[in-house]
Amino acid sequence: MNRSSRLDATFTALADPTRRAILARLALGEASVTDLAKPFAMSQPAISKHLKVLERAGLISIGQDAQRRPRRIEAKPLEEANAWLEGYRTFWEASYERLDALLQELKADKPKRKRTKR
Amino acid sequence: MNRSSRLDATFTALADPTRRAILARLALGEASVTDLAKPFAMSQPAISKHLKVLERAGLISIGQDAQRRPRRIEAKPLEEANAWLEGYRTFWEASYERLDALLQELKADKPKRKRTKR
Repeated sequence: MNRSSRLDATFTALADPTRRAILARLALGEASVTDLAKPFAMSQPAISKHLKVLERAGLISIGQDAQRRPRRIEAKPLEEANAWLEGYRTFWEASYERLDALLQELKADKPKRKRTKR
Repeated sequence: MNRSSRLDATFTALADPTRRAILARLALGEASVTDLAKPFAMSQPAISKHLKVLERAGLISIGQDAQRRPRRIEAKPLEEANAWLEGYRTFWEASYERLDALLQELKADKPKRKRTKR
């Protein structure tokens, strides 16, 4: 997979609340499919489907234990997604700067108005 | 939309190379749909469909000019996605630390072996 296909797979995997919750659970430590299914009102096959999407994106791997086959978080693809988003940081920071400038203007304006009233 | 639905919409919008390319183009300045369609071997309706997905996620807005209806990038949802990813930073940094520790071990090991050979 090239970088673009990896980003497709990662963003697709992250575009679902159950899959994000599974990652949040795995952030606490590895877990079996049965453990992962517990907090969700979902059948094991439904959870397995979500795990496949996460696996395809390289976001989880399967541990050594042949019986439990525990799932483990793999954060590398998240780093790549993060790097992509960082490219746009100037844009969201710029909008804060505009807001901040507006706020400063309003603040500078307020006491003036008060003074004219007195 | 709550935070989870906003993340669903944002990650869905980002899970496509054409939509990411549209955002990259809009990062250079606002553009009309015709301008946006030019670099892609795609019909205008196909591009419009992608723009709808970006709009739904709040990643683009439509400018004032009633005739050109230029699209503009809105980075706020990217910031929220970035904040979500940042929650996992310790995981990708941890894997670098493990790699680094391994490298240090190998480095520390190498000269020792050389010395015993001499």
